[in-house]
Amino acid sequence: MNKSALQIERSKYSPKIPASIDGATKLVEGKATESVADQADIKKLFPNTYGMPIVTFENGESKVANTQFNVGVILSGGQAPGGHNVVSGIFDGIKKINPANKLYGFLGGPSGLVDHKYIELTSEIIDEYRNTGGFDIIGSGRTKLEEVEQFDKGLEICNKLGIKAIVIIGGDDSNTNACVLAEYYLQKNTGIQVIGCPKTIDGDLKNEMIETSFGFDTATKVYAEVIGNIERDANSAKKYWHFIKLMGRSASHVTLEAALQTQPNVTLIGEEVEAKNQTLDDVVTYIANVVAKRAANGDNFGTVLVPEGLIEFIPAIKKLIAELNDMLAANQAEFDKIAVDDKIDFVIKHLSAENAALFQSLPTAVSKQLALERDPHGNVQVSLIETEQLLAEMVSKKLAAWKKEGKYNGKFATQHHFFGYEGRCAAPSNFDADYCYSLGRVASLLIASGKTGYMSSVRNTTKPAAEWLAGGIPITAMMNMEKRNGKMKPVIQKALVKLDGGPFKFFAANRDKWATETSYIYPGPIVADQTTKTLVLEH
Amino acid sequence: MNKSALQIERSKYSPKIPASIDGATKLVEGKATESVADQADIKKLFPNTYGMPIVTFENGESKVANTQFNVGVILSGGQAPGGHNVVSGIFDGIKKINPANKLYGFLGGPSGLVDHKYIELTSEIIDEYRNTGGFDIIGSGRTKLEEVEQFDKGLEICNKLGIKAIVIIGGDDSNTNACVLAEYYLQKNTGIQVIGCPKTIDGDLKNEMIETSFGFDTATKVYAEVIGNIERDANSAKKYWHFIKLMGRSASHVTLEAALQTQPNVTLIGEEVEAKNQTLDDVVTYIANVVAKRAANGDNFGTVLVPEGLIEFIPAIKKLIAELNDMLAANQAEFDKIAVDDKIDFVIKHLSAENAALFQSLPTAVSKQLALERDPHGNVQVSLIETEQLLAEMVSKKLAAWKKEGKYNGKFATQHHFFGYEGRCAAPSNFDADYCYSLGRVASLLIASGKTGYMSSVRNTTKPAAEWLAGGIPITAMMNMEKRNGKMKPVIQKALVKLDGGPFKFFAANRDKWATETSYIYPGPIVADQTTKTLVLEH
Repeated sequence: MNKSALQIERSKYSPKIPASIDGATKLVEGKATESVADQADIKKLFPNTYGMPIVTFENGESKVANTQFNVGVILSGGQAPGGHNVVSGIFDGIKKINPANKLYGFLGGPSGLVDHKYIELTSEIIDEYRNTGGFDIIGSGRTKLEEVEQFDKGLEICNKLGIKAIVIIGGDDSNTNACVLAEYYLQKNTGIQVIGCPKTIDGDLKNEMIETSFGFDTATKVYAEVIGNIERDANSAKKYWHFIKLMGRSASHVTLEAALQTQPNVTLIGEEVEAKNQTLDDVVTYIANVVAKRAANGDNFGTVLVPEGLIEFIPAIKKLIAELNDMLAANQAEFDKIAVDDKIDFVIKHLSAENAALFQSLPTAVSKQLALERDPHGNVQVSLIETEQLLAEMVSKKLAAWKKEGKYNGKFATQHHFFGYEGRCAAPSNFDADYCYSLGRVASLLIASGKTGYMSSVRNTTKPAAEWLAGGIPITAMMNMEKRNGKMKPVIQKALVKLDGGPFKFFAANRDKWATETSYIYPGPIVADQTTKTLVLEH
Repeated sequence: MNKSALQIERSKYSPKIPASIDGATKLVEGKATESVADQADIKKLFPNTYGMPIVTFENGESKVANTQFNVGVILSGGQAPGGHNVVSGIFDGIKKINPANKLYGFLGGPSGLVDHKYIELTSEIIDEYRNTGGFDIIGSGRTKLEEVEQFDKGLEICNKLGIKAIVIIGGDDSNTNACVLAEYYLQKNTGIQVIGCPKTIDGDLKNEMIETSFGFDTATKVYAEVIGNIERDANSAKKYWHFIKLMGRSASHVTLEAALQTQPNVTLIGEEVEAKNQTLDDVVTYIANVVAKRAANGDNFGTVLVPEGLIEFIPAIKKLIAELNDMLAANQAEFDKIAVDDKIDFVIKHLSAENAALFQSLPTAVSKQLALERDPHGNVQVSLIETEQLLAEMVSKKLAAWKKEGKYNGKFATQHHFFGYEGRCAAPSNFDADYCYSLGRVASLLIASGKTGYMSSVRNTTKPAAEWLAGGIPITAMMNMEKRNGKMKPVIQKALVKLDGGPFKFFAANRDKWATETSYIYPGPIVADQTTKTLVLEH
């Protein structure tokens, strides 16, 4: 690998770990757990892994022998900074237990387990990747482990390689599937354990026992760096409104954290838009009002943060998309045959009056995107909608109307940006480097203790790393039943932004000031040892 | 101001300056200069500021008295990291000469001088902005100082405020205008001096005596950070080709430097496309070939860097745009009257056969942009063309054709990005913090020495700052005559990428390897005290 100066410097960094797992460690079992909801259903689906106790590691003499075992690790789904440190934490952890222990990495995500594609991760390989971003050490993938055939193929390779446990590093869905796999392997008496690790930059995998998913810290700091730079540009040139969309899937955690770090003029939070039952026009009017107020103060510039999932949270748009999907599915043969130029008219004619009106009010580019571009299942591709451009266009239209009415007399020129890929593989911050390495070390202890169906857990993370609490949480304890593709399924409850939580309340208390005054903060590159504002305000 | 942790940390940084201006300094005059071309014309236009000697500052007893004088400073054009350090360098410089000296900042760019909008820059204000990014201390603007009325309005306020010299911090055009102003004030015997400072992230203001413009170092490092993060994402997910457009106006310096720092699979250099007389199809075929070669190796991912000005360098497109502009100007009344849907047909009918064919071969979005969106002068808005999307679409089409012919059998999914605003106001790197502060200090010495029509110059910049050479270059020495809006004008020669220069030759020698192998470098955030690869390879 060609190493940059920063990589060389970072390779010398020694991740900090909780004092409780530094040295002799014993496992302490807590009380039995219940799932967060739908207890009877979850218990029925997970007879072997339901109700297990929360466990913690404390200093003390271990009862665990220095057994020899091998471990397999899988990186699942979208990249998040720190993944390589989870892997190196597992590696160091199992080598400490017994130097003969081996770590195998399954290649290209969960499919590596099914297709038997793997490498042995030696210390030469591991050392190249310590404290680096990316998932390139073994690659990642989006194959879902859901079928018995997949589980059996996995079992085959585990038996062949002497693998006693699989660690799945992934988001909510991957950890749900990790638990299904753990349950299956227990039920079949295979002796194979499965441990999960909480990964996602989106920040939506958290709950009472999991304070944060790894990668959220670094990714939001990278976004805050570039947003701060753009704010300073806006405040220097004083001529553009910058509309900035941020990754984060349906949850708005990333956008909220970025807002807390940079204090832009407008921040939209999808969860609030839904809770207030706002229309697209409500959102546009809110932005236009801030633009007009600033213009009245002579400030014809600003910044607007837009969460990726916003559009899905607007109840009216949600209804329109649902009707579009149903209507097009019902008329697919006919729709496919008509000329491209006539498709829009077809859509308008076949929608209910209310949705047809909303559809026609959208800018042409967006209505085309909705009507013409479908995913392989025939569904509207909401993620392709360039919400940041859509909002900029609609605000512009509204301001033009207000100008005619004499309600507004400013200039409105826009730039738009989308940040996502820039943050997912950034070099991990100290927080993520420490947190991930600790998660990996804890995973190795859970394996040595014979645990399965647990998620590696490190808590108390607003304190110095030495004071962090290490342990494991039964994955079933985080589950409830939700409808997926028309069927009820057991899944880890996704954490959306809580409107009564510390981070949102702090934002809501300050946003009017940030809207009219220019209160920008310019974070610049990552500074050592600072946690996210979200964590600080939540704990 | 709300300060981030990084800002607080950076405020403690003490910029390094050349040893020759640290302490007692004397001015040494070199040989008389000539303009780089069109000597007779330039001499005629600048009778008072033509042929002046290059000057350097060396340690020694100064003959300059500690006179009292005031200075006005102007930030002109697009932001570049380090502008605040030029201002603080001037401030500290003139205060060292005489603590009673005052620095005025004209607000919002050159228009501040004309409209008499200014503030006095006190040490309280200056201290808030040391080593920070942005131009927000006094704002910037794009008003061009070209008219005698503007010069006279400037004179008025200078006389009122006791301003002996104006420092204009700007790019090639702003420095050209600085020299016109210097000439005018000399000719009128006003006693007002004008000094320029070389600013632009684009890197196109450089020549034998000016090694680099400030901001290029920081901006390219910020772009390299996010490009490296995207490369690592591409190399982890292994499923996207990322098309990344970079700012830099017509020159490709920014793109070339980013390529040297990150080693992507494809880098387009506008100057080479023009020199080789390539068509758009040549460019598309080149990219498609790299995609196909990587696909044959099993790598269905990659990164492509595209300079903002590329499209203007393609000779065929240049011709199309020229004919479009002429044709639409000639038929404007008729064109304005016809329905939007018919405009494209109108354009095709009225173009020459060759250009009509090219126009029809472009993706619809681009041909619409070319035909329908015009600037206030009625010209095609080339900068609005989303070249990164255009190329991605055209490569996709070509690969689909090759797939039918059995020449290609990979997957091709794309993401696109544009980086520009993210880098212009970043916190300056150590290089830019030092270089800019030194430029400001040197400007104050040029003023105290009675010089006018000079650009502040700091050279030998690949060596430690103490060994840097400080001095002044007559702006007329950088000029030649060029056609602008149909008229011959004296302008500073714009520096394009030299195809026989060190940076391009290093790139050209390595690009085939970078294309097929994955040789990415992940620079991460800025690391202290590294100059650009461009500077290293040029000197």
